[in-house]
Amino acid sequence: MKKYNVGLIGAGFMAKAHSIAYAAMPMFFWPAPGIPVKKIICDLTEEGAKDAAARFGFENYTTKWQEIINDPDIDIIDIATPNDSHAEIAIAAAEAGKHIFCEKPIARTKLEAEAMLKAAKLSGVVNMLAFNYRRTPAITLAKKFIDEGAIGNILTFRGTYLQDWSADPNVPLSWRFQKSIAGTGALGDIGTHVIDIARYLVGDIDEVCGLLNTYIHERSVQNGSLDKLGTVKSTSETEKALVDVDDEVSFMVKFKNGSTGSIEATRNGWGRNNYITFEIHGDKGSIFFNYERRDELQVYFADDSYDRRGFRTIYTGPAHPNGEALWPIPALGIGYTETKIVECYDFIKAIKDGEEATPNFNDGYNIELICDAIIKSSKEQKWVKTGC
Amino acid sequence: MKKYNVGLIGAGFMAKAHSIAYAAMPMFFWPAPGIPVKKIICDLTEEGAKDAAARFGFENYTTKWQEIINDPDIDIIDIATPNDSHAEIAIAAAEAGKHIFCEKPIARTKLEAEAMLKAAKLSGVVNMLAFNYRRTPAITLAKKFIDEGAIGNILTFRGTYLQDWSADPNVPLSWRFQKSIAGTGALGDIGTHVIDIARYLVGDIDEVCGLLNTYIHERSVQNGSLDKLGTVKSTSETEKALVDVDDEVSFMVKFKNGSTGSIEATRNGWGRNNYITFEIHGDKGSIFFNYERRDELQVYFADDSYDRRGFRTIYTGPAHPNGEALWPIPALGIGYTETKIVECYDFIKAIKDGEEATPNFNDGYNIELICDAIIKSSKEQKWVKTGC
Amino acid sequence: MKKYNVGLIGAGFMAKAHSIAYAAMPMFFWPAPGIPVKKIICDLTEEGAKDAAARFGFENYTTKWQEIINDPDIDIIDIATPNDSHAEIAIAAAEAGKHIFCEKPIARTKLEAEAMLKAAKLSGVVNMLAFNYRRTPAITLAKKFIDEGAIGNILTFRGTYLQDWSADPNVPLSWRFQKSIAGTGALGDIGTHVIDIARYLVGDIDEVCGLLNTYIHERSVQNGSLDKLGTVKSTSETEKALVDVDDEVSFMVKFKNGSTGSIEATRNGWGRNNYITFEIHGDKGSIFFNYERRDELQVYFADDSYDRRGFRTIYTGPAHPNGEALWPIPALGIGYTETKIVECYDFIKAIKDGEEATPNFNDGYNIELICDAIIKSSKEQKWVKTGC
Amino acid sequence: MKKYNVGLIGAGFMAKAHSIAYAAMPMFFWPAPGIPVKKIICDLTEEGAKDAAARFGFENYTTKWQEIINDPDIDIIDIATPNDSHAEIAIAAAEAGKHIFCEKPIARTKLEAEAMLKAAKLSGVVNMLAFNYRRTPAITLAKKFIDEGAIGNILTFRGTYLQDWSADPNVPLSWRFQKSIAGTGALGDIGTHVIDIARYLVGDIDEVCGLLNTYIHERSVQNGSLDKLGTVKSTSETEKALVDVDDEVSFMVKFKNGSTGSIEATRNGWGRNNYITFEIHGDKGSIFFNYERRDELQVYFADDSYDRRGFRTIYTGPAHPNGEALWPIPALGIGYTETKIVECYDFIKAIKDGEEATPNFNDGYNIELICDAIIKSSKEQKWVKTGC
Repeated sequence: MKKYNVGLIGAGFMAKAHSIAYAAMPMFFWPAPGIPVKKIICDLTEEGAKDAAARFGFENYTTKWQEIINDPDIDIIDIATPNDSHAEIAIAAAEAGKHIFCEKPIARTKLEAEAMLKAAKLSGVVNMLAFNYRRTPAITLAKKFIDEGAIGNILTFRGTYLQDWSADPNVPLSWRFQKSIAGTGALGDIGTHVIDIARYLVGDIDEVCGLLNTYIHERSVQNGSLDKLGTVKSTSETEKALVDVDDEVSFMVKFKNGSTGSIEATRNGWGRNNYITFEIHGDKGSIFFNYERRDELQVYFADDSYDRRGFRTIYTGPAHPNGEALWPIPALGIGYTETKIVECYDFIKAIKDGEEATPNFNDGYNIELICDAIIKSSKEQKWVKTGC
Repeated sequence: MKKYNVGLIGAGFMAKAHSIAYAAMPMFFWPAPGIPVKKIICDLTEEGAKDAAARFGFENYTTKWQEIINDPDIDIIDIATPNDSHAEIAIAAAEAGKHIFCEKPIARTKLEAEAMLKAAKLSGVVNMLAFNYRRTPAITLAKKFIDEGAIGNILTFRGTYLQDWSADPNVPLSWRFQKSIAGTGALGDIGTHVIDIARYLVGDIDEVCGLLNTYIHERSVQNGSLDKLGTVKSTSETEKALVDVDDEVSFMVKFKNGSTGSIEATRNGWGRNNYITFEIHGDKGSIFFNYERRDELQVYFADDSYDRRGFRTIYTGPAHPNGEALWPIPALGIGYTETKIVECYDFIKAIKDGEEATPNFNDGYNIELICDAIIKSSKEQKWVKTGC
Repeated sequence: MKKYNVGLIGAGFMAKAHSIAYAAMPMFFWPAPGIPVKKIICDLTEEGAKDAAARFGFENYTTKWQEIINDPDIDIIDIATPNDSHAEIAIAAAEAGKHIFCEKPIARTKLEAEAMLKAAKLSGVVNMLAFNYRRTPAITLAKKFIDEGAIGNILTFRGTYLQDWSADPNVPLSWRFQKSIAGTGALGDIGTHVIDIARYLVGDIDEVCGLLNTYIHERSVQNGSLDKLGTVKSTSETEKALVDVDDEVSFMVKFKNGSTGSIEATRNGWGRNNYITFEIHGDKGSIFFNYERRDELQVYFADDSYDRRGFRTIYTGPAHPNGEALWPIPALGIGYTETKIVECYDFIKAIKDGEEATPNFNDGYNIELICDAIIKSSKEQKWVKTGC
Repeated sequence: MKKYNVGLIGAGFMAKAHSIAYAAMPMFFWPAPGIPVKKIICDLTEEGAKDAAARFGFENYTTKWQEIINDPDIDIIDIATPNDSHAEIAIAAAEAGKHIFCEKPIARTKLEAEAMLKAAKLSGVVNMLAFNYRRTPAITLAKKFIDEGAIGNILTFRGTYLQDWSADPNVPLSWRFQKSIAGTGALGDIGTHVIDIARYLVGDIDEVCGLLNTYIHERSVQNGSLDKLGTVKSTSETEKALVDVDDEVSFMVKFKNGSTGSIEATRNGWGRNNYITFEIHGDKGSIFFNYERRDELQVYFADDSYDRRGFRTIYTGPAHPNGEALWPIPALGIGYTETKIVECYDFIKAIKDGEEATPNFNDGYNIELICDAIIKSSKEQKWVKTGC
């Protein structure tokens, strides 16, 4: 079985998620399309990098990502850094002929995304973005039902991504609240996941009309660089700095196929943790999904007999996509880990088969176009074509 | 205890709902602010009217609503007819000095609403619109929590009213699908309920941006005039006629107080029956409600201790607004009936106390302004001021 | 349409529930099998009785129930008093040839129940017990599915009735906590509803093994006779008296058809209000019901295709038993009222058709046998035959 | 950081679950109490063992488990085989001074369990049983709340473990349906998980009264030895053999502290996949948990203010036990994997700290006593003391 040497750049939350996927993928998908080998990991400091190698099971470590790019033994560059370094690293990796697995969103701006896409196309490497939520088995099942026509033609899509880990103004100012690093706020960080799901399940988006808001305008300056998300104890005593990205976005969409939709993403949704939901109405049925109860897909088939109609709560398991590889009983438990394991499998399989991965840089670029249109729409207070 | 003689115009689904409320209100709210007496009912035919009187417990019946208006013994005119007759009847009733309880939406158009409002103001009669859902105890409780500041300043409101009783194209063309009678479709019929709730809980709406759609363009001509909603067996064999109203509407709103929101109402939401929901994010907490599980209100308080935070599922009962009058144990069961009983109480109480009822013709007129703005916005593809 | 004159004995919570049913039944079921006329109501005091007549819409009132029994104009005796007077009134009513609608449980003891059953049989009057929960449309639908064989042969039944209105020891000592009036506590008051449902859906019970507990041993003496359930403000200052009935009961059952089951009823289930649930496993599917979400029935059909299996959440409506009479759209809202309206319909229809009503005194007597066996089982710590 | 060499015996579903835990534990709990090294794995055939080593990332493999026991480099013996080999392997491991991590239930019989316990005590090795579900963060949180007195004194516990992967008679006869290998059926396989949770949360069990049933009496003989649980396509064509274990068990319990409870475990619960639930009533509140929605704990605090009482749906995350080690946002997703990672951490930590692990062989032995008492109770139809 072919081995693929991985160089992972970044040592935070996402490094953890990717590392477990590399370790576990062959345990789940067997025979595996290839065995990822955790070769080298890069962090900003010597101490951090060494620690990360021990923790995440990498053979080596470095503080210079360029070393990894230039290492001929490395097959895969895994970019798990904040958004501001995606473009530079990815373009270098593409030029070095490495396959690229990159965290979402693709980059800070449309221009960066365009350059990345161009470099990837030129080099022909397999490239993939870590919009992992679409790998939730229940969402893959939704895709299957839609493709089978089980709910007919899609009329509307309504999606949300609601969080509250930073609804408290005392949560410090990590890079996710800074435009120079993140590009945008709730829109890029979480809204893009829903856009990815909408494109996956419904299709290309033609036009948008949206509103961006920032409710919390300043936050405490953070000690240290690490992005700790909801694990930081909030404090109100330290120096404050400006939040220059959105923390709430709401928009309507028109899909190219004539469907319409609405999407909301917020960091101020008290009580909602990782509330990725969508409801799709077709002319033969409906689908509802809530990631907080991710083992379940709710599906309604209009052609069920008159007195037996109702949303079915389907627990994904062996009967469903990737089910035999995952766990042998539904509801044994799909967690975040499993979404990353499936993602890893799809990526390695694409490399092995010499095929395009999805979602790839082209998808990421299109999502950037959509985000740009939303921002423009919010400024100009009107519908804007995405140009996708 | 003062008795109030009621003349009810209409003999369909709403006549039933109003009649049970008149009979039951004093049983629940005791001592009652007054005893409604079911004096006379009006239907289009002699047979229908006679039958309705027997069924709904009215002392007399007529086929001429004007007779009721002109009867000096009648205190209250209850308008439970399709939208096209609201204005004419209400204006006549106001001129005759009768208190008016009128089904929603107020009328077909802004002009009709304006005339009704003017007549009601001139005569000084108590006037109320049957947006009954805001009387659901859980919604009244939401109002109380918001007024107490329990969830802080409101940031966003997201509401839906999804139905599927007419998602099947074979459901016949009742008056609800005809512009000349109904004015609008999903917007006026169900969307206005959510607008009413949004205004009740958040405040006045300043600007809207929306999309109206009609997915099902023709339906079978119906035998007989009665509006049977979901009880009609669908058929595909009869002659077809055009649906000239919307069956789906989605819009974003800006409230005058700076909050924003989005609302969707559809008749094509397979699997959703009477799915009136809202989620409100405040800066101190959140509220979620789903009418399909109407005994419950979900509330999240951000100031709960760090490890005990979570949406509370509160079952409304004696501890909550109107609770002692309703049933002596939560979850004994709030149904449609109870919303109408509370509504009846509030109306009779307003008459007794000589105060304004809410929502009244002024509210109804403002809702018409909002609907007009949504329609205009959908046509012109831009944000439109409501003029409220 | 024939009118039936009703004499209602009792003026509390149940008088309200029955009165609204008499008023509303023909509004829902039309043409009605008969029109109940609220003729006379009886309460202990002149003031109470007069007040009740005004409130519940009765033509007359009395303080002597015997007067009602002796009145030849009265067709129906409705017994809505505490358990200790059921036998005396019912036997007198039977002897006077009146049809009898009696609150549950049938009586305090097996002996009382036996005497009531004997009297009713002798006179041949229609007799019915107000186990209203089985009239919830979702439970009637469960019965239909079971009868159709939709879930195959029943293997197990698991039921609960959990409440918390008296979980606080400061809730006063109403008659429901006194053996001399109530007979038993949680067992008779709420456990019998689940037994009724189990018998309705699964069949006769052959043997039981149970545990009765009393966790709260004393309560404040109550001012006034009225049973206020959850509406009483608790207090800890007044004189205490002994609770001599159970407040928790749990038991296993063997049905005559070979199925087994377990049932729990408690007054100490903090957070559960009127939590009547059951789950039935058949060899072809399963059914789950929770009265707190009573518009819904959850059904699982094992013969659904492999990747589309899941509990269906069916919202009862026009497509289901009694659905066309109730409300024209599912989830418009089934409340406590609707269960009583259906109950009233079934009772009046039985009278009109000259047929037996169910559940009747024979059912009530059998439920007493089961309760007796549970009590014996708890004392003797072993399985006990019910003798049904 | 100390490394611990692991020898894993078994190569099925559980080998996968344990292997991912060994790989991932330090990624989550960092600094880790020790680094487990996947040294050697054992399967019945050379081919199987070799394949397993490649798949699960072990350095070596063998077909003789005794070799692992005798290898002085091995620190930990992980027993992931069917129940019939637990005793022999565990006793040998204990005698060889290896720490033991053993799948549940501890063994087939009380005698085997007793011998294992004796051997473990004698050698003083750390021993632990893989009742992993108690490691679900929500259950650990329940334990914390109970220990804090947040729900007061516990009155009752009601637990279930309902499955349906073998509700279809065509699912083949794996070892789980054979008494000679498994010891018991639903009781040992899944019922013991609930018993473990009950003991963990409430305390020791004094007396039981139960019913065991076998509804499906024969199944197809299986090709190959592997236990495939729900991933096997059912077939009705092959040769049949007898099922000689229970597939449904229901029992009541009396805890030593005076609480009571009831527990049901079934393999015939159509629609229930891995439905491990419990509801605990205390005199100050209640707790409800459902593993199928395992990110959530439902808690009700009776001392919440009168109009704000309701079950709180708490999503476990950084604010809760082990939360900082797991994922940085609640509802990011707890899966089966995470329960095994926490379990692995607790085991390695016990070794490092030289302390007892829980649940250990003593717990397993006591659970066997309880199972024995349930079986005896079912045969003799009466309450039986457990002897714990």
